[in-house]
Amino acid sequence: MTIHHGISPDVLAALEGVLGQSGVAADAAGMARYLGDWSGDHHGGALAVLKPASVAEVQAAVRLCGTLGLAMIPQGGNTGLVAGAIDIGTSRGAVVISLERLNSIRLVDADNFILQADAGCILQHIKDAAESQDCLFPLALGAQGSCQIGGNAASNAGGVNVLRYGMARDLIVGLEVVLPDGELWSGFSGLRKDNRGYDLKQIFIGSEGTLGIITGVEVKLFPKPGRVETAYLGLASFEAAITLFRQARRGCSDLISAFEIIGSECMGLARLVDPNIVAPVTAPVHVLIELSSSAAIDLRTLLVDFLAGAIEKHLVTDAVLAESGAQAMAFWSIREGLVEGQAKRGYHVRTDLSVRISDIPTLIAQARQFVALEHPDWLPQAYGHAGDGNIHFNVLPPLDLAEPESRARGVKITAGLYDIVNALGGSISAEHGIGRTRQRVYWAGLSPVHRRLVGALKNTLDPNGLMNPGCLFPSMETVS
Amino acid sequence: MTIHHGISPDVLAALEGVLGQSGVAADAAGMARYLGDWSGDHHGGALAVLKPASVAEVQAAVRLCGTLGLAMIPQGGNTGLVAGAIDIGTSRGAVVISLERLNSIRLVDADNFILQADAGCILQHIKDAAESQDCLFPLALGAQGSCQIGGNAASNAGGVNVLRYGMARDLIVGLEVVLPDGELWSGFSGLRKDNRGYDLKQIFIGSEGTLGIITGVEVKLFPKPGRVETAYLGLASFEAAITLFRQARRGCSDLISAFEIIGSECMGLARLVDPNIVAPVTAPVHVLIELSSSAAIDLRTLLVDFLAGAIEKHLVTDAVLAESGAQAMAFWSIREGLVEGQAKRGYHVRTDLSVRISDIPTLIAQARQFVALEHPDWLPQAYGHAGDGNIHFNVLPPLDLAEPESRARGVKITAGLYDIVNALGGSISAEHGIGRTRQRVYWAGLSPVHRRLVGALKNTLDPNGLMNPGCLFPSMETVS
Repeated sequence: MTIHHGISPDVLAALEGVLGQSGVAADAAGMARYLGDWSGDHHGGALAVLKPASVAEVQAAVRLCGTLGLAMIPQGGNTGLVAGAIDIGTSRGAVVISLERLNSIRLVDADNFILQADAGCILQHIKDAAESQDCLFPLALGAQGSCQIGGNAASNAGGVNVLRYGMARDLIVGLEVVLPDGELWSGFSGLRKDNRGYDLKQIFIGSEGTLGIITGVEVKLFPKPGRVETAYLGLASFEAAITLFRQARRGCSDLISAFEIIGSECMGLARLVDPNIVAPVTAPVHVLIELSSSAAIDLRTLLVDFLAGAIEKHLVTDAVLAESGAQAMAFWSIREGLVEGQAKRGYHVRTDLSVRISDIPTLIAQARQFVALEHPDWLPQAYGHAGDGNIHFNVLPPLDLAEPESRARGVKITAGLYDIVNALGGSISAEHGIGRTRQRVYWAGLSPVHRRLVGALKNTLDPNGLMNPGCLFPSMETVS
Repeated sequence: MTIHHGISPDVLAALEGVLGQSGVAADAAGMARYLGDWSGDHHGGALAVLKPASVAEVQAAVRLCGTLGLAMIPQGGNTGLVAGAIDIGTSRGAVVISLERLNSIRLVDADNFILQADAGCILQHIKDAAESQDCLFPLALGAQGSCQIGGNAASNAGGVNVLRYGMARDLIVGLEVVLPDGELWSGFSGLRKDNRGYDLKQIFIGSEGTLGIITGVEVKLFPKPGRVETAYLGLASFEAAITLFRQARRGCSDLISAFEIIGSECMGLARLVDPNIVAPVTAPVHVLIELSSSAAIDLRTLLVDFLAGAIEKHLVTDAVLAESGAQAMAFWSIREGLVEGQAKRGYHVRTDLSVRISDIPTLIAQARQFVALEHPDWLPQAYGHAGDGNIHFNVLPPLDLAEPESRARGVKITAGLYDIVNALGGSISAEHGIGRTRQRVYWAGLSPVHRRLVGALKNTLDPNGLMNPGCLFPSMETVS
């Protein structure tokens, strides 16, 4: 439920005094696009949306909010899936601080494989800037055309290339952060290796805006791969897919840049986006595998030989190699169509589970069985980043179910899936974070000592509890 | 200076009550091997050495020390180079808590590429356990035969394979830590990807025992490379070496597992260890390059072709490819001989600098010029992990200089080298940490806001300041 408090003229004038009129929106029309998330699932309220145009303006805004006792919600591209950057549930008003006007790439240093950017830079622009210098910035998400690097850092974003290059955390060399008291902590260095004491940036990465506002990010670049090979495979089972993954890690020398699994039941979703999509294979389980390397390696022969062996061992029942970049893109459009197709179906249960890689088949089997037994009219969809143990097990309501009822059922289905993943020792959030949609179940699952440490960090860095309240923590009262 | 306080019979009895007689040493003979570091540079004092045999005993010991107000110094293999695990300078006595009896490998899970071990496990034993399952644990240091994985985690150890596999931080999936109040925080999960809120393990990695005692470490394994190719190269300059590195990153597809540079002046040191060592090349700058991959890649052709191109461009003046594992080991023994050779020379200035990779030639040129002008009788030695921007620029005193005087001069030389690296925006500690030998210069170089954050973390997690006092922080008084 969204509770919206009006902003007083005095507060508005004070905010405009710091940020100028163009830096503050407090009317419904001006705020609208900052208050709904990408999925359409969540809409929030805000006293105002602040749009600082410089790091100094972020500092000034944070100081003023501190003085006024205003809660602050830092916001990047607002493409997150857990309502981490919109105020969907707190009982008091807050201001959204959008970083979108801090959108300069500060440095592309291909000699040192380093790039520095403002937090508000769109991920795709950073990838393009890297590519223009024959480099790769490997973070790759469906939302890369609109998500921002600051949000990627704050949420420790994942995506399809984690297997090879790691999460956002692994790609970040330095951060610049405005602390809750408005002070600027700058941790840019351009150094690839630096072991001077506590690595403070680690605290802010993945903290979802609860400890400060990231204003700049320094990342690692990689040589742009000279070759990429992509294949779309059919397999008999998820067990076979996991066995194939293990053999691929060894056989393909960790040149695998993506290893996605898709249950064949998901194909209908992809066709919602493009009715002409035809899966390249017919099999219960599909695998999209991508290798990448320098031009000096005969990557195609490597992949062909590896797949020939897997087919001979009956591990792979069908395999189609992309003969062109266009065909590879067509394979990827199937994978990406799943997410878009789900969104077209409106509200649905969306999870982001991880387990030990070897437990993936069990997770999917138990989750399917649970849905079949208890919610047989719902449609389960299993796909994900198998190499990371990360499965998006999503469940679509029947088409004729009205939304209030489907949401109520969705809560129960989600809880059932979380029970399954918890019993397997897995995680309810492999990459999406906690935000406001998962904070209660997250908090409930923590050990007392873990809870105490998390709360102590929060209280130490944000003693007044003004940074993104309601996100990560169920309420400030439970933190202390 | 070492100040040793005797331990009172009551305190000794209380410690023995918790750990048994075999778990406590308080006599000079029993404590000796825990009080001097590997380099022989530093000797510390302690009230007692505690040797808990289980995690529960670590907890009990920490609780008792808390009650008694005893400072605690966690200690792994004691192979660090910055006196992080011995009490060389504090004015009050402390107990050393050795983790050596916690030395079981708990789990080797090759299916999920995960290994779990007690903190006291020797790194080499972990590497061997991984290899026995056809896996690689890539952390590789000169001290791997005696350093412990808990110390590797606490110091965020580096080494020769950082370029490919990262620092200890990048290899750690989970930690188990006894907190300063004796509570156990357990962060083992077996998950490759988990984005549930603050990543607490990051706080303890690299904290050098100042925030708790690591009792268990969970690490990533990799497929054991089926092929390794090693070459020893001669180049005209460090500039050429950096250019070669950049081209190698692109040309060899990030299959480079090591790229070490060695100034030819260092050869005399290697010969102190083995007088028969002959450098395979004659050139001002030597490069030891290692590639590794699965057996499916023709790595030798890749390396030969790459080097042929580099020779044609006159970037490499001489190249010798290892024709056997034995020859590759001989190349490595030159590199490793540098460290041992220096140790044989006794006290010397030992640094661990990092700069942007492109600044390496400038760093070395300025450092050499400084020594030549101001300390012309000292011998500079430049070598290091060039791909990480990490240079060990060490300086050996003249053979006829008495140690008290050489140490006094060494302080000045170190300060001069730190001035040079600071002016280049570099780090005084690329991988060795801060410990007790660098804590003043570290602290002096921090911005006020960084200092405040570091102090706040320490005060929050260790409010009584009992964990490894004197390490990282110049004194507790300056922290608050």
